[in-house]
Amino acid sequence: MINEQIKERIISIVGTENFDDSKVGRLTYSYDATPNFQALPDGVVSPRNTEEVAELVKVCNKHHIPVVPRGAGSNLCGGTCPTEGGLVFLFKHMNEILEIDEENLTATVQPGVITLDLINAVEAKGLFFPPDPGSMKTSTIGGNINENSGGLRGLKYGVTRDYVIALEIVLANGSIIRTGGKLAKDVAGYDFTRLYVGSEGTLGIVTEATLKLVPIPETKKTMLALYEDLEAAATTVSKIIANKIIPATLEFLDQATLKVVEDYAKIGLPTDAKAVLLIEQDGAPEVVERDIKKIADLCTEENAVSVQIAKTKAEAEALTTARRAALSALARLKPTTILEDATVPRSQVANMVKAINEIAEKYQLNICTFGHAGDGNLHPTVPTDARNKEEMERVEKAFEEIFEKAIELGGTITGEHGVGIMKAPYLELKLGQEGIAAMKAVKTALDPNNIMNPGKIFAKDSRKRVVIGQ
Amino acid sequence: MINEQIKERIISIVGTENFDDSKVGRLTYSYDATPNFQALPDGVVSPRNTEEVAELVKVCNKHHIPVVPRGAGSNLCGGTCPTEGGLVFLFKHMNEILEIDEENLTATVQPGVITLDLINAVEAKGLFFPPDPGSMKTSTIGGNINENSGGLRGLKYGVTRDYVIALEIVLANGSIIRTGGKLAKDVAGYDFTRLYVGSEGTLGIVTEATLKLVPIPETKKTMLALYEDLEAAATTVSKIIANKIIPATLEFLDQATLKVVEDYAKIGLPTDAKAVLLIEQDGAPEVVERDIKKIADLCTEENAVSVQIAKTKAEAEALTTARRAALSALARLKPTTILEDATVPRSQVANMVKAINEIAEKYQLNICTFGHAGDGNLHPTVPTDARNKEEMERVEKAFEEIFEKAIELGGTITGEHGVGIMKAPYLELKLGQEGIAAMKAVKTALDPNNIMNPGKIFAKDSRKRVVIGQ
Repeated sequence: MINEQIKERIISIVGTENFDDSKVGRLTYSYDATPNFQALPDGVVSPRNTEEVAELVKVCNKHHIPVVPRGAGSNLCGGTCPTEGGLVFLFKHMNEILEIDEENLTATVQPGVITLDLINAVEAKGLFFPPDPGSMKTSTIGGNINENSGGLRGLKYGVTRDYVIALEIVLANGSIIRTGGKLAKDVAGYDFTRLYVGSEGTLGIVTEATLKLVPIPETKKTMLALYEDLEAAATTVSKIIANKIIPATLEFLDQATLKVVEDYAKIGLPTDAKAVLLIEQDGAPEVVERDIKKIADLCTEENAVSVQIAKTKAEAEALTTARRAALSALARLKPTTILEDATVPRSQVANMVKAINEIAEKYQLNICTFGHAGDGNLHPTVPTDARNKEEMERVEKAFEEIFEKAIELGGTITGEHGVGIMKAPYLELKLGQEGIAAMKAVKTALDPNNIMNPGKIFAKDSRKRVVIGQ
Repeated sequence: MINEQIKERIISIVGTENFDDSKVGRLTYSYDATPNFQALPDGVVSPRNTEEVAELVKVCNKHHIPVVPRGAGSNLCGGTCPTEGGLVFLFKHMNEILEIDEENLTATVQPGVITLDLINAVEAKGLFFPPDPGSMKTSTIGGNINENSGGLRGLKYGVTRDYVIALEIVLANGSIIRTGGKLAKDVAGYDFTRLYVGSEGTLGIVTEATLKLVPIPETKKTMLALYEDLEAAATTVSKIIANKIIPATLEFLDQATLKVVEDYAKIGLPTDAKAVLLIEQDGAPEVVERDIKKIADLCTEENAVSVQIAKTKAEAEALTTARRAALSALARLKPTTILEDATVPRSQVANMVKAINEIAEKYQLNICTFGHAGDGNLHPTVPTDARNKEEMERVEKAFEEIFEKAIELGGTITGEHGVGIMKAPYLELKLGQEGIAAMKAVKTALDPNNIMNPGKIFAKDSRKRVVIGQ
């Protein structure tokens, strides 16, 4: 708890205007984009620089006050819900792109920079920052780093982790360390850069990052292929890869999602198709031309009922809307949208989608599935209502079976959303007790007082999705 | 120490034929490719499978016996020298390529697989495993993973870390954990896969790895550009990148190296050139053609005195020999070859080479510099004689200054060779006391008895390069 003395100390660090423990302020940051998790923090603080972050963390460490770093709160694992109270850290004053270094192909940023702002800023210089999470219009780079965010370009370009080459980190004891550098190669000690990417704020606070950039692809082409059966769509995905083509984007929507998207976006999608593949290739014009032609042939060979290659940028955007709008469209249906990201090896996508459909039927649920077919990262989504306890129980059971199936197929419980509090009870399925014990040992070593985003990643008990606080 | 009882227990696990504590056996594994480090292990053991590794580690953990996992011993940081005695683990029975999965583009291997054997096996299937350390003809994948090996293709393709997606690891307590999977995306818990890559055997033993493969580039072109001054070569490197071209290889040799290589390999290199760039591009034929032409133009613009594009595969191989032969050629000169890998941001390569030359003059040493200009990873090399104590002291001092300069320029003390025992005393230059303390906390958490390759990464005292044992 934050008593008057601690409050005074915090204000002496950041100033009155950057500390808020009003009811409204606390309520505002009591939840994130994840449905069904809510808990009040004791206060909200907005440090202006790394030194202030370090001073604040020292205070929190001394008094065992939970520290919850928060970007835009757009994560989907309850990762920024202050489930144990404490101080929510905002980065609204630490939101500068500090440098775009065209000689070394790097960008150095503060954690509060909006992802799309960075993407636009580097593209203006002919450079490319590939990670493009669905939330990129609002998400921050700091949040992306904490969650190791993915996106639609992951198949060809990898995820956030693959583009973080240096970090400034405030440790739980308040010391400030720097990892990596503007270096393609650095093996001086353990790879703390990657250990911290995806650590969900549980090991320290990232206060600055240097990101690797690549030259922007010269051109891009977009196409949509419709199928009368799921199997054929999945076989097409495998065939594309078997033909040694790695598309920039290789996305999948099932019929249930397709119907919802068409109803929402009215882009003329044929809702009688059983599956849709959205495919993009980028690179040198000759290569893109050749790849797209080859991909179109493969789709036709696998009995796609329609293959449409966008002729203009506007047309391409209309096609990608089909995929980008999926979550918004689904979120309109019911008060609560539960979206998961069970992930399997690419070769198991068809088996996983079939299993999801069987589980949906078993539990009498409407599960819409879309996602990144190219990297086996699926988003089975249930439009539901958190107030309907009976249905919520079925949702829980269904997702538990989905996670178990993903693991059985060589997959994981989360491909890009993170564990947070939401998937903590299922982590053992993936890592086993010994894997969790090893990770907990690292957590304890770097945060002995368990102040850094406590309650995340590691489950306290077998409790599943529940409403906390309110 | 290994007493009779422990010896019996070890033999009961692996069989008599797989344990050797003879003087000859111990001498054979008392050193690695790093000059000037030698220490006798208490024994050498060759487990046949993961379970045997786990059982052996349990014995070692119980009796606090150092565990030194060793591939080919080709590392250059003293990483596999058993400086505190104990058991050297060999992987000669665990050297199978278990699977090449063409649908998921992965290879699953045991640690003892020779790097080049893997590269050849996947290339036979039209796939590509890019990391190509200089020692790839003898080095093992297990060793590459422990050291996070780089190579000549790092600029475009990254290093070993970028291709490891799943590991089976025996922890210091003998438990067996699995990280990752055949998955492009996996954020279930901390990124232990990358934490273990490059951890130099100090956190556990890798007993199996799944590696990411990519389609093999359709074609490749090789060229050599000669310069009358170093500056012009460095400017060319920057200009190539500024033109949004990322070559597959962008290597540099200074005049001193050039002369030695020509004397050794007799490939007709003009030894009056002050600097040489070896450049390769791979990919689709149209793109390679265009890039190589553009690069040739840039070389000419920057006053290269000669630009030679290989017309045949044989010609290309002759050109790459100039670079690949550098270490062998240098090693002929004197009894001891000290090769380092200070690394700087690409934009600082010219400054770093100039500084190295000044330091060489200051300490009256012959330092030959070559390396990966594209990623700022340089290999300043001193042909010397370990028996010449006075000269060795100057070598020590020179390298300390080189490391300090690299850090000053935003670089690191080691780009791809690892810290081991050799660079442990300099690690603080890069990480600071607080960075080292954090890494040590992780080490202690995962290996409380400090049995896993003890004495590596973390310096015991300020002792620099010394001969241990013998």
